[in-house]
Amino acid sequence: MPRRVDHEERRRQITDACRRVVARDGLEAATFQAVAAESGVSVRLVQYYFGNKHGLLVATHRAVIEGSAARFGGGTSPGESAEPPPPRAVLRALLVAQLPLDDARRADAVVLAAFHAAALTNEAVTPQELRGAPRALVDLVAAQLLRERGDGALPGDRSGPGDRARLDAELVLASAAGLTQGILAGHVSGETALAVVDRLLDHLVDPA
Amino acid sequence: MPRRVDHEERRRQITDACRRVVARDGLEAATFQAVAAESGVSVRLVQYYFGNKHGLLVATHRAVIEGSAARFGGGTSPGESAEPPPPRAVLRALLVAQLPLDDARRADAVVLAAFHAAALTNEAVTPQELRGAPRALVDLVAAQLLRERGDGALPGDRSGPGDRARLDAELVLASAAGLTQGILAGHVSGETALAVVDRLLDHLVDPA
Repeated sequence: MPRRVDHEERRRQITDACRRVVARDGLEAATFQAVAAESGVSVRLVQYYFGNKHGLLVATHRAVIEGSAARFGGGTSPGESAEPPPPRAVLRALLVAQLPLDDARRADAVVLAAFHAAALTNEAVTPQELRGAPRALVDLVAAQLLRERGDGALPGDRSGPGDRARLDAELVLASAAGLTQGILAGHVSGETALAVVDRLLDHLVDPA
Repeated sequence: MPRRVDHEERRRQITDACRRVVARDGLEAATFQAVAAESGVSVRLVQYYFGNKHGLLVATHRAVIEGSAARFGGGTSPGESAEPPPPRAVLRALLVAQLPLDDARRADAVVLAAFHAAALTNEAVTPQELRGAPRALVDLVAAQLLRERGDGALPGDRSGPGDRARLDAELVLASAAGLTQGILAGHVSGETALAVVDRLLDHLVDPA
């Protein structure tokens, strides 16, 4: 189906351009005109693929989330080795993959911060349209913690090992989000963020 | 000096109105016209006090940070009792004071998220203009952790108890920022956030 592939490439070309515009100039700057100029296509074509600005923004947000998930998946590739990597290594890779320590991840994090702020005042998107992705990560982190701790309880049960693992997983993701915010704002250096990640893992995988 | 008090009250009246506009409609909506209408004063008066939109926004950001610091100070009031409260209680009060668990703190957190996003693309303010406040909190948290752990090392030294306390303090503040983001976005309930706070304190004040 070569035409379908073309369509997907074209959509990707436009959402990539939208990501660059938002990372550079903010969400307000992502007009059809600016995104068309950045991607080298006509305004009419952007309109054809995304209908309106809201459709373009929701598609761009999804592209950032999917890119981030793919990057994390690429970092661990559990299917390639017979033995799964130790949980601490998996958790560290996941945490580090979230942090804006290179230009690509920094740009993604700026775009996500712009969407987060806009959703809170319902400017361009609603919070409901941005949900979903973080919840899958909580399950992933909780499963690794349970594997490390060797207790067989599942993440669903309340007030047992699974419940503690879920709280720890929320803590891991909240820490990653907070460190990301600190790095972007210039409060926290990349070096300090990595040291905090290791310190957090010391607390989590060598519990008292 | 009654006239000076009047000036401060008037400035506060205008920055309070600006906070409401930003929390409701976003940073882009905070024009002189909108803020003047919200505060019930003339555009000319807003201009007289703040010069330009940038001056108004920087003053509004400072007002939010100062309000947040005052709220935390009011929650612990260490000067009133002869015995200082236990470090865990102080840390919990500090963490909880950061979370958007009521309307006032939620509005503040929305305003801060708007400033954070805008600063990243240098739209209305720069990251440099927003710095300072979080660093004072790191020192405060690290000092409480050292008091709890009973080791006399100061937060300045590297690779000793003070260094670990500073990393833990960064972890505390990153967690609070991430939980705030999750609550605002609707990923994390207030109840879960409080349970994560208690879980984090279990890790920090009962170290292995």
